[in-house]
Amino acid sequence: MARSEVPDIVVGRLPIYLRALIRLHSEGHEITSSHELAQILGISSAQIRKDLSYFGEFGKQGTGYHVATLSAELQRILHVDREWQVALVGVGDLGRALARYGGFAHRGFRISLLFDNDPEKIGQVINDMTIMPAEQIPQVVRAHGLKIAMIATPADAAQETANLLVEGGIRAILNYAPIAISVPKDVHVQYIDPVAHLQRMAYYLD
Amino acid sequence: MARSEVPDIVVGRLPIYLRALIRLHSEGHEITSSHELAQILGISSAQIRKDLSYFGEFGKQGTGYHVATLSAELQRILHVDREWQVALVGVGDLGRALARYGGFAHRGFRISLLFDNDPEKIGQVINDMTIMPAEQIPQVVRAHGLKIAMIATPADAAQETANLLVEGGIRAILNYAPIAISVPKDVHVQYIDPVAHLQRMAYYLD
Repeated sequence: MARSEVPDIVVGRLPIYLRALIRLHSEGHEITSSHELAQILGISSAQIRKDLSYFGEFGKQGTGYHVATLSAELQRILHVDREWQVALVGVGDLGRALARYGGFAHRGFRISLLFDNDPEKIGQVINDMTIMPAEQIPQVVRAHGLKIAMIATPADAAQETANLLVEGGIRAILNYAPIAISVPKDVHVQYIDPVAHLQRMAYYLD
Repeated sequence: MARSEVPDIVVGRLPIYLRALIRLHSEGHEITSSHELAQILGISSAQIRKDLSYFGEFGKQGTGYHVATLSAELQRILHVDREWQVALVGVGDLGRALARYGGFAHRGFRISLLFDNDPEKIGQVINDMTIMPAEQIPQVVRAHGLKIAMIATPADAAQETANLLVEGGIRAILNYAPIAISVPKDVHVQYIDPVAHLQRMAYYLD
């Protein structure tokens, strides 16, 4: 099946499956099942089987999935069987935490360029990376051939930052600024907004 | 319609609508439409109208939505027409950034308790809050009557932390640790995992 024919909502669940499989692998499990994954993830086993069936036959009836094989397959499908270098713009408290976060590397990503527009921050070194001026984003990002970026600027700088990133050839943006950004149709954007998650849960509280 | 009858996926979109409305309001817009919201958010106008219709009649045919009124209604529906105090466990780089983040307050939440299990951190003061020992979570959280918490611990401490929070009466957990946690059925959990978002977008890159 062509990539474009798989619903994005299905694509969005693959990283969740991969995360669970890697945990099972680290705990020494060799075989798992859609039922076990369902139990761990709170997603129905039928949904899991249907999602995976878009990409081929991964389990044998009655014998379940081989954890290492299915992990490797999902990594290949998600294109994280390699390491993507990522640009990070905005090195405040959050950006600094992201730049230092050790959890990206073994899951397919490494922050390799840092930008900020604060003269006091430019030139500082975090995790062996020197913070560069935001105005240089287009040239530097293009020179390094990066395709993925994270925005951790204040809300009012997010759109301008997105414009610079797109100008530099970025095709996927993870936006931590609590504001919707406009990008060309062929650029992907995902948002991280903790307050939206908190609000969604507050709905159920009294 | 009873709260429990509204699909959770619809509830999950309400904070996105609210975020856009508050932005429109701050930019001086008094009236908006499902078409304008659709344009901003990349969600179809039919979907937006259908989602809102679960909760009543908010717009008049042809005249659109009154931005301030609809914002207030969504805040009421989401229970963020008040301020929820939130406990935060794990004050590493990320936890520190969250504790200092100014974006929670005007959207219904305030981090008011900090916990960590590192003796060097316990007793430190961040944003006027003193970091308390994680072992005190059940008593302290219950004494303050908190219902919402965030976990920003390493993955291997997340489940134990969740257990302590649930013991203290917490009913909604925002989990930043990249691992699924098990909680009783009446406790809500949402995950923030930037890598899952990056992987979802990497699928589309070559």
